[in-house]
Amino acid sequence: MKKYLYPEKEQWEVLTTRPTQSYADIEETVKAIFKEVQKNGDTAIAKYTSFFDGVIIEKTEVTTKEIEEAINFVSADLKEAIALAKSNIEKFHAAQQTGKVEVKTTVGVYCWQEKRAIQKVGLYIPGGSAPLFSTVLMLAIPATLAGCNEIILCTPPNKNGTVDPAILYTANLCGITKIYKAGGIQAIAAMTFGTQSIEKVYKIFGPGNQFVTVAKQIATQYNVAIDMPAGPSELLVFADTSAVPAFVAADLLSQAEHGSDSQVVLVTTSKAVLKSVESEIKNQLNELPRKEIAQKAMENSKLILVNNIQEAIAFINDYAPEHFIVCSKKETFFVENIRNAGSVFIGNYTPESAGDYASGTNHILPTNGYAKNYSGVNLDSFMKSMTFQKISEKGIQNIGKAIEIMAEAEGLQAHKNAVTLRLKSLKNGN
Amino acid sequence: MKKYLYPEKEQWEVLTTRPTQSYADIEETVKAIFKEVQKNGDTAIAKYTSFFDGVIIEKTEVTTKEIEEAINFVSADLKEAIALAKSNIEKFHAAQQTGKVEVKTTVGVYCWQEKRAIQKVGLYIPGGSAPLFSTVLMLAIPATLAGCNEIILCTPPNKNGTVDPAILYTANLCGITKIYKAGGIQAIAAMTFGTQSIEKVYKIFGPGNQFVTVAKQIATQYNVAIDMPAGPSELLVFADTSAVPAFVAADLLSQAEHGSDSQVVLVTTSKAVLKSVESEIKNQLNELPRKEIAQKAMENSKLILVNNIQEAIAFINDYAPEHFIVCSKKETFFVENIRNAGSVFIGNYTPESAGDYASGTNHILPTNGYAKNYSGVNLDSFMKSMTFQKISEKGIQNIGKAIEIMAEAEGLQAHKNAVTLRLKSLKNGN
Repeated sequence: MKKYLYPEKEQWEVLTTRPTQSYADIEETVKAIFKEVQKNGDTAIAKYTSFFDGVIIEKTEVTTKEIEEAINFVSADLKEAIALAKSNIEKFHAAQQTGKVEVKTTVGVYCWQEKRAIQKVGLYIPGGSAPLFSTVLMLAIPATLAGCNEIILCTPPNKNGTVDPAILYTANLCGITKIYKAGGIQAIAAMTFGTQSIEKVYKIFGPGNQFVTVAKQIATQYNVAIDMPAGPSELLVFADTSAVPAFVAADLLSQAEHGSDSQVVLVTTSKAVLKSVESEIKNQLNELPRKEIAQKAMENSKLILVNNIQEAIAFINDYAPEHFIVCSKKETFFVENIRNAGSVFIGNYTPESAGDYASGTNHILPTNGYAKNYSGVNLDSFMKSMTFQKISEKGIQNIGKAIEIMAEAEGLQAHKNAVTLRLKSLKNGN
Repeated sequence: MKKYLYPEKEQWEVLTTRPTQSYADIEETVKAIFKEVQKNGDTAIAKYTSFFDGVIIEKTEVTTKEIEEAINFVSADLKEAIALAKSNIEKFHAAQQTGKVEVKTTVGVYCWQEKRAIQKVGLYIPGGSAPLFSTVLMLAIPATLAGCNEIILCTPPNKNGTVDPAILYTANLCGITKIYKAGGIQAIAAMTFGTQSIEKVYKIFGPGNQFVTVAKQIATQYNVAIDMPAGPSELLVFADTSAVPAFVAADLLSQAEHGSDSQVVLVTTSKAVLKSVESEIKNQLNELPRKEIAQKAMENSKLILVNNIQEAIAFINDYAPEHFIVCSKKETFFVENIRNAGSVFIGNYTPESAGDYASGTNHILPTNGYAKNYSGVNLDSFMKSMTFQKISEKGIQNIGKAIEIMAEAEGLQAHKNAVTLRLKSLKNGN
C-alpha cells in the first residue's frame, strides 16, 4: 500500500492514472483471428477454442440435456439466492422503462421520441477461475425486459468441454436458450460476423480480459456496437471517522481479489482512519484464499489523506471510480457532488458486494476513468431512441418559411425546394 | 436510378449494403496527425490548418470582436428563422429530461438511478461548401440543457481565416463562447489530447467527412467517447398511391444534394407511383443549383417495387435508414412496426427538411445501418446514468445471505467476507 499525505494538486494526474496497457501487440492477434473467423466460421472457432481453451468442442451450442443436468446440479441454497438477486435486479431495471416523449413544438408540428429494443444482442460471460453467473443476471435481465428479439450468450468451455452449471442454470432461468461454448477473441468475432452456428448480433455486451476488450473495440469497426470499453475493476472508498475501519478494509480487499491489476483507493480526511484501515487490511489479508492476487493488487493500492471534503470530492471526480463507497457524516455532500462514478454505495452497511450480486443495481460499470463519459449497463443499453414527426398542412405553413430561409443560407436548395413545393401546393388549394 | 421490381429476399443483402469505404489508408494519416498533435499541440494544429485549410491562423480562438461582427452580419430574416428553430428544438429536447428512478428492491435496500451531465464536451461543425449552423443548434441546445460544464466548438476556418457568420451567431445565441478555428483530423486530435489553447474533452459530437469519422474512431482509443460513427447521409421513402409524387421526388433530391455518396431509396407497393416519382425526379433535377452532386447521388439511388407492406417493412428494417419518410394509407402499420430507423417522417406534409432544421427533432442520426444499434443525438447523449444505493442494517440482513452464497459460488471469498463481517457485527449488537 502506498500512502500519500496531503498530496498537491500537481500530483493528482499521477494519482488518477491507471496502469497503461499495451494494446499494440494484441491488436494484430485480434485482427488476424477476426479475419479467420470471418472467412472460416465455425472451423476457426473450433481451432481457437482448442488453442486457447485447450479443449476440442464438437458441438458449439449447449444442448437441452446439458442445461437440464445443470438445473439438477445447482444447490437449492444457490437457487434461492439467485432468485432473490433476480427479483431485485428485475425490479430496479423494470423501473427504468421510459414512456413516449410527445411534444407539439408548434401548432401542427407533432414530434415524439420512443425507445425500441435492439433486435439482436450478444452477451459475453468470461470463463477463468470464477464462474460469473451473476454477470448472466446483469445482462440477461435488462435484455429480456427491453424486449430484444434475439439474445445469444457466449462463454468459454472449461478444460473438459463443459460450461459451469451455475452459468447454464442462470441463463436458462432468464430465458436465454441459445448458449454457445466459445470464448475470448473468437467469440467476439463470431458474434460480429456470424458463423454457421452462431448468429451475428447488433450489439455485444459483457466484461472480459484484455483480449476480449480489444476484440470488442475491433468489432466496432464492423458495424457492431458495444456496451463500453472495459478495464480492470476499481473501488474508491471515502471514509471519515464515522466509518467502521474493518468494513472499509473488507471492501477494499473484496475489490483487490478480482485480479492483481485491480485498482483500490482510500481517500480520507482523517489520519487515524487511514492508519486503522491500513492495519485492518493487514489483519484480514492473511485469511483470504485468494490472498496472493489480493496482496499483489494491494501493493498498487493508494491510501490518500486530504485536507477537507471539498478536496476529496474534487479528487474523486477527477479519478472517476467504477465503484465509489462513501462512509461519511457528510454523505449528502458527496451524493450531491459526485459527478463521475459508475455506482455509488452509501453508508456502513452498503458493501460493494451488494451491488455486485443482489441489491438490484447493475455491476457492469465503466472503469479506467470512463465514468466521466459512459453509463453503466442499464435498460437503455439494450434500446435505442428513435424520433418521429408528423406535420399537418397548418404545421408546414407555420414552420415552412423558417426552413426555407435556413436551407437557403446553408446553400441547400433542394432542401428548401421540398418545402416550397408543399407551400405552393397549399396556396393553390391542392 | 436503378429499378428493382419485386426483388427476391436473397437480393436484400446487396440492396441494403452501403458502398464500403477504405479506411486503411486514412487510418495511418489520422494516427500520424494524432501523434503530432499530442506532442506539439497548437503548433501541430497551425501546421495542419495551413496544410488542409490553406490558411495561416495566428489565434485559434474566435475573438469577441469576430462574434460581434457576425451578429451584425446575419440578416434579420435568418435570425428570426433560427429563433423559431431554436425554440422548437429546445422544447423537444427539454421534454426528454428524465427524473430520478427510485426503487426499494427489498425492505432496507434503496437503489436509485440519476443522470448527470458529461462535464466537458466538444462539438464539431464541418466546414466546406455549406456552413452548417443548423448543426450548431442540434448540438449546443441539448448540451446546454443537459448542463455540461464546459462546451467547446471546433470548426475549420475558410480560406481567408474566418468562420461563417451564421455559425458564430448561432453558437453565441446558444451560449457557446469557446469557439476554435480548427477542423478535420487536427480538431478531433486537439479535443482528444488538449493543446495550449484547446481544452481536452470527455466526449466529441458532430458530423464530418471520412477523415473526421476515422479520427473520431481513433479518439475512442484515448478514453474519449463519441456520439456515433458517421457515414454519408441517407433517406428511404415508402410511398403508396396516397403520396404526392412531386413531394416524394423533392424529398429524395433534397437528400441527394448532400453529397455524391448520399443514399437515396424509394420503396413502393405501386408500379404507378414508382413511375411517376421517377419522372418527377427527372423534371426537378434540372432546376437544382447543386445538380451535379445530386445527379451523381441519384445514379446510385434505388427505386424498389415490393409485393406488399409486410415485405416493405421487413426490407426497411433490414436497411435501417437514417431518415425514413412514410406516405401511406397504412402509416400506422409502418409507425408501429418500424424497428430500425434514425428518424421517421409521417405524411405528405412532413419533409425531411423539417427535421433537418426546425421541427424540433435532432438531425444528427445514425447512418450506414447503425440505426440498428445506435440512437440519434438526444438529451441523454450529453449525460450518463449513475446508480446509487443505500442499505440499512435491516437491509443487509435481508439480502446478506444471498450475497454470501453467490460470492462463495463464484469463488470470491473476500466479496463474501465484506458481508459476513457486517452481519456478525449486527448479530453481536455492535
